[in-house]
Amino acid sequence: MENEIKTKVIGINVTSSVTLIALVDIRGNILAKDTLKTTDYPNVNGFVEALAEHIMLLSEANGGYQTIRSVGISAPSANFVTGCIENAPNMPWKGIIPLAAMLRDSIGLAVALGNDAHVSALGESVYGYAHGMNTFIIVTLGRKGVGSGFFSYGQPHLGTDGFAGEIGHCCIDVNGRPCNCGRKGCLERYVSIQGILQTAREMLEQTDHPSLLRSAGELTIEQLKTCADQGDELAREVWNVAGTTLGISLANYATVVNPEAVILTGVLLEHAKWMMAPMEKSFYDSLFHNIRSTIRLLVSPINNSDRDVLGASVLAWKVKEYSLFK
Amino acid sequence: MENEIKTKVIGINVTSSVTLIALVDIRGNILAKDTLKTTDYPNVNGFVEALAEHIMLLSEANGGYQTIRSVGISAPSANFVTGCIENAPNMPWKGIIPLAAMLRDSIGLAVALGNDAHVSALGESVYGYAHGMNTFIIVTLGRKGVGSGFFSYGQPHLGTDGFAGEIGHCCIDVNGRPCNCGRKGCLERYVSIQGILQTAREMLEQTDHPSLLRSAGELTIEQLKTCADQGDELAREVWNVAGTTLGISLANYATVVNPEAVILTGVLLEHAKWMMAPMEKSFYDSLFHNIRSTIRLLVSPINNSDRDVLGASVLAWKVKEYSLFK
Repeated sequence: MENEIKTKVIGINVTSSVTLIALVDIRGNILAKDTLKTTDYPNVNGFVEALAEHIMLLSEANGGYQTIRSVGISAPSANFVTGCIENAPNMPWKGIIPLAAMLRDSIGLAVALGNDAHVSALGESVYGYAHGMNTFIIVTLGRKGVGSGFFSYGQPHLGTDGFAGEIGHCCIDVNGRPCNCGRKGCLERYVSIQGILQTAREMLEQTDHPSLLRSAGELTIEQLKTCADQGDELAREVWNVAGTTLGISLANYATVVNPEAVILTGVLLEHAKWMMAPMEKSFYDSLFHNIRSTIRLLVSPINNSDRDVLGASVLAWKVKEYSLFK
Repeated sequence: MENEIKTKVIGINVTSSVTLIALVDIRGNILAKDTLKTTDYPNVNGFVEALAEHIMLLSEANGGYQTIRSVGISAPSANFVTGCIENAPNMPWKGIIPLAAMLRDSIGLAVALGNDAHVSALGESVYGYAHGMNTFIIVTLGRKGVGSGFFSYGQPHLGTDGFAGEIGHCCIDVNGRPCNCGRKGCLERYVSIQGILQTAREMLEQTDHPSLLRSAGELTIEQLKTCADQGDELAREVWNVAGTTLGISLANYATVVNPEAVILTGVLLEHAKWMMAPMEKSFYDSLFHNIRSTIRLLVSPINNSDRDVLGASVLAWKVKEYSLFK
């Protein structure tokens, strides 16, 4: 008897700079990977063509196209319900992009598309600390943005339009920094890598405190960590401000959702050693008193380079549940 | 054939001042009502005894105790999961009060207890504008506090401990007004009736702007409305500040939950005519752009005096779903 069940899926993570494509098995083992430069494709048709070609090559080199069950895509501002990327402020393609339908038509496999933050939550619920949790929040602290999703009773809470969890676009200061979304004072302008570097630049400009950062040339998040490691007070204060700001926002989010855990992910965490203690303090200080003793603040065990394709692979397995395109 | 099915429930709303008891039929008609002064019972045992007696009298006067199916109770800081009122900052009874179990043991009927805000959401989902909505937020603007609950996929999202939706205890200013919960700057210190009156008192003290409120003696919310009606600029500014503050917080809440509607209730709304326009403006201005066109900001059609007992009656019908005490 030949076993004809399809045991692999394709997980894709689209970001404004790079698109990662992975071939993943039932247990979440990443068998092979490939990348595209998203910025090479100002036109989305060209992008879908290239994506289809890379999927074919990756499949043929690893057991053949006929062993692939389905495709899951994680992308910013993507809508689970419609399968479209919708008005993503940081992406090269403007307006409404029906990426799931376009790729399905091109390769003839079922394709599900999800918001990167919700897809991260799916991945965490199957392969991370949220395994077995009914209600949890996941927050991704990225280079430009802060994404998030939460589970309600064991399912992703997607919201009416599939856009729930946009903590990065919650307003923390109506007169604050301008955001790509068109408003002012969005959280992600303060606690993404870009946002934290802006805080550092403002502190350097607005004070005359001595700091190793003053001789650092163009500021990077690596420098900000290194200077803090070396005891630089201004650098530590930058991390302190970011941690406090983030802690309060996470506490307000948790006060509304009452999760078992808030799980943090994202590239910022690779550099954020000096942010963690002030964040944790302001998180627990700001939480609604009745949930303070039950909630956990965790860093995801899944590494950042695999997280999104792994989440997208979970979406691919659940394609019947989440996609209009079956 | 005698029809022996029980067609009535008891809906109870416990507040820090008054407890309302209602006999409600299948269609949500309130057949009879009774009240207790909560403050007359500093000891909760005496309160449960009195409650049981009033339930008996109300039932016997309206078809008999044997026609009552079950009891639902709405109370502040109540926990759906455990059936307890837990550390309610404004209530006469401190600590953990197992009210559902106590009343069940006293009267021999199934009793479910829920957080007043979640119970309001239940009522709204059966008898209000949320009928037919999968995902919505309800916010109750009260005398001392601001309560809230939300639905996810047609069910109340209670959270891990049954305390989800505590928007009133989200922090809007870490250095802000002290709250009964022990922290500073909770939203309800600014947009409850008490909070708005405090804003008015602060504006009167900290400025010398002329205002009709200066000759008003002890300030009330009715005066604040009347003075705004008469064109008093300071009174209108108080409403303006409250509306703007509330609008941003509601937008942040909606940006996380992505509901079909945010539905407002509560006694404050009876006086809040001058708050509505600035609230609506700051709500839509502050919303995440991708959900701005789909979301509705509504005032509940259920009147405030019936809302909580009606919600509690829905809880009573769902007693098998929501109570540990079957």
